[in-house]
Amino acid sequence: MSKARQLLQLPGVFEMHRGGVITRPTIAYETWGELNNKHDNAVLIFTGLSPSAHATSSAVDPAPGWWEEIVGPYRPIDTRHYFVICVNSLGSCFGSTGPASEAPDTGEIYRLNFPVLSLEDVAAAGKAVVDFFAIKSLHTLVGPSMGGMTALAFAAQFPRCSRNLVLISTGVRSLPYSIALRSLQREMIRRDPDWQAGMYEPGQGPIGGMRMARKLGMISYRSGAEWQQRFGRERIAGERRSGDPFAMDFEVEAYLEHHAQKFIGEFDANCYLYLSRASDLFDLAEHGGSVEAAIGSIQAERVLVIGVESDGLFQIDQQRELAAGFESVGRVVEMAELPSIQGHDSFLVDMDRFRPVIDDFFAVG
Amino acid sequence: MSKARQLLQLPGVFEMHRGGVITRPTIAYETWGELNNKHDNAVLIFTGLSPSAHATSSAVDPAPGWWEEIVGPYRPIDTRHYFVICVNSLGSCFGSTGPASEAPDTGEIYRLNFPVLSLEDVAAAGKAVVDFFAIKSLHTLVGPSMGGMTALAFAAQFPRCSRNLVLISTGVRSLPYSIALRSLQREMIRRDPDWQAGMYEPGQGPIGGMRMARKLGMISYRSGAEWQQRFGRERIAGERRSGDPFAMDFEVEAYLEHHAQKFIGEFDANCYLYLSRASDLFDLAEHGGSVEAAIGSIQAERVLVIGVESDGLFQIDQQRELAAGFESVGRVVEMAELPSIQGHDSFLVDMDRFRPVIDDFFAVG
Repeated sequence: MSKARQLLQLPGVFEMHRGGVITRPTIAYETWGELNNKHDNAVLIFTGLSPSAHATSSAVDPAPGWWEEIVGPYRPIDTRHYFVICVNSLGSCFGSTGPASEAPDTGEIYRLNFPVLSLEDVAAAGKAVVDFFAIKSLHTLVGPSMGGMTALAFAAQFPRCSRNLVLISTGVRSLPYSIALRSLQREMIRRDPDWQAGMYEPGQGPIGGMRMARKLGMISYRSGAEWQQRFGRERIAGERRSGDPFAMDFEVEAYLEHHAQKFIGEFDANCYLYLSRASDLFDLAEHGGSVEAAIGSIQAERVLVIGVESDGLFQIDQQRELAAGFESVGRVVEMAELPSIQGHDSFLVDMDRFRPVIDDFFAVG
Repeated sequence: MSKARQLLQLPGVFEMHRGGVITRPTIAYETWGELNNKHDNAVLIFTGLSPSAHATSSAVDPAPGWWEEIVGPYRPIDTRHYFVICVNSLGSCFGSTGPASEAPDTGEIYRLNFPVLSLEDVAAAGKAVVDFFAIKSLHTLVGPSMGGMTALAFAAQFPRCSRNLVLISTGVRSLPYSIALRSLQREMIRRDPDWQAGMYEPGQGPIGGMRMARKLGMISYRSGAEWQQRFGRERIAGERRSGDPFAMDFEVEAYLEHHAQKFIGEFDANCYLYLSRASDLFDLAEHGGSVEAAIGSIQAERVLVIGVESDGLFQIDQQRELAAGFESVGRVVEMAELPSIQGHDSFLVDMDRFRPVIDDFFAVG
């Protein structure tokens, strides 16, 4: 847990987008920089499915964040000028209320009694933090991956709340290919006997299922071209090999195992299931009846859309659709199509390509 | 089981490429058309990982085969002119000896006592059928997907045994992306408690694991563009939906479930594991020290390479590498890059694009 984490507890009940309520939810967030007197220099960042609110390091918590090279002093989102907020998604397990949290009214862990989660709820929870700081209008709303869909859900629900929009490796809706991948990830978790229909004890969940879900995640987040460069057909060192004919043999298998191992200790399985399904369910067209209507309602002045050619999860066409949509309603749109080979995850690793694009956008504003 | 299936039992022991032996293995195959007096009109087809030898229908077995529109009278591989042989891969479970077969010397089912399987073994088993028919030189050797790697393993081991080569959606080796996918599929099966470390009773294997492995197979065999056209965000009919928040909701999920259901009754889990690992292990460079050396040794006159732009499993670059390799050693090469949207599986479904390319190649010969 980051020492820099702040918690905001909402009073009363929080009504969920698709029905049901949760009582007095907590929203975890971190901030960097100073909110100015006019309260007009705030940047709100929504995350992908699994990160916490710890986007970058600070004096309070020097541990590197998930977007360390993008957020901070003298970095593209420059915390000397901007007041940056990153929220942990509602439904997640890094301080915000989710299926792994205790329901304050019953004292029981929500587990599968948590109501259906939508990205609209994640957005509304972020809005509560914005309101808490008495920010009427954000300078910029930023979201990569699932965070990009959350940013769209935010903008559709609060259309005048941000002057600029940065949408990265995301789309106006989930397409069947990504739904299929997530559906299979959920099945891996749900078929693990240790899932116990969601009733596992905290910290003891379906480790085997989570490990496999993370591996499939890695496969869909990266690209074949990158792995060919990194691993080729390298074999793992002899001493790590066992007699089992189906044990790990190739370096790429060890790489997946390493990432899976890191993940399982961190993320709660039920939270994963809820956020995964929330991603499937998102369709911007539900706001106003069509994507065009939804985009037309969003009052952002400038929009930056970044997509990556090797992204198999949110393919470049989805970014082009977003850019064209905002252009057609007269917004100033910049579209960057990056030749990164790291696939969907490029925004986390191909900093040499992402840094200048984000830097340029914030430099003008 | 196809009524047209023939069985060839090899005498003595069959030495495996990576060590170990199997005793008196059986090779299942089917044939269509007539072998001519000169024995020079034979076409040998190796299959992908999961099909049987039943490539097409016949009077004896009118059930449609897995390549029904390609093989038969008046079809691209015209059985009025060619004597077509399709073999069930050694290690598979449709008549050929594999991990699900009884070892003749012990009376026990092989299970994990089956030696490490290589595509070189699958190729050598096919060669035994060729020898059985006293065929010195095949007119054409054909292989899609894993069958294409098997065809390369055949040509590298028996370099003068085929005058023409048709390689479809395949490559000179398995790359880390496909190894990662197959490794995860194997993990799904091996983590299923019903796998019982390979000791499950015949017909009772790890159904949950196999179902998921097949779903991941479908995800890697098709393409996002195709599913977007076919399913978009269609929901399944109300009556098929349950109250479970993570049950199937989208049509694409029902489609995967349907295919998985069909598969689990058919394919043996241990056989799947062995064939999957055999695919990982294949590297044409092992024949002669480099891909160039291996290709240079293969004495085929004409080579047809077909690749599909949307193929994520054997990407189009791998077909280009193959075509360039054969060209560099002076073979007559035709390379067809097809704009099919059905991904790796296009050779099974996009018949309007595949038919004319294969037809042209066989028409000249």
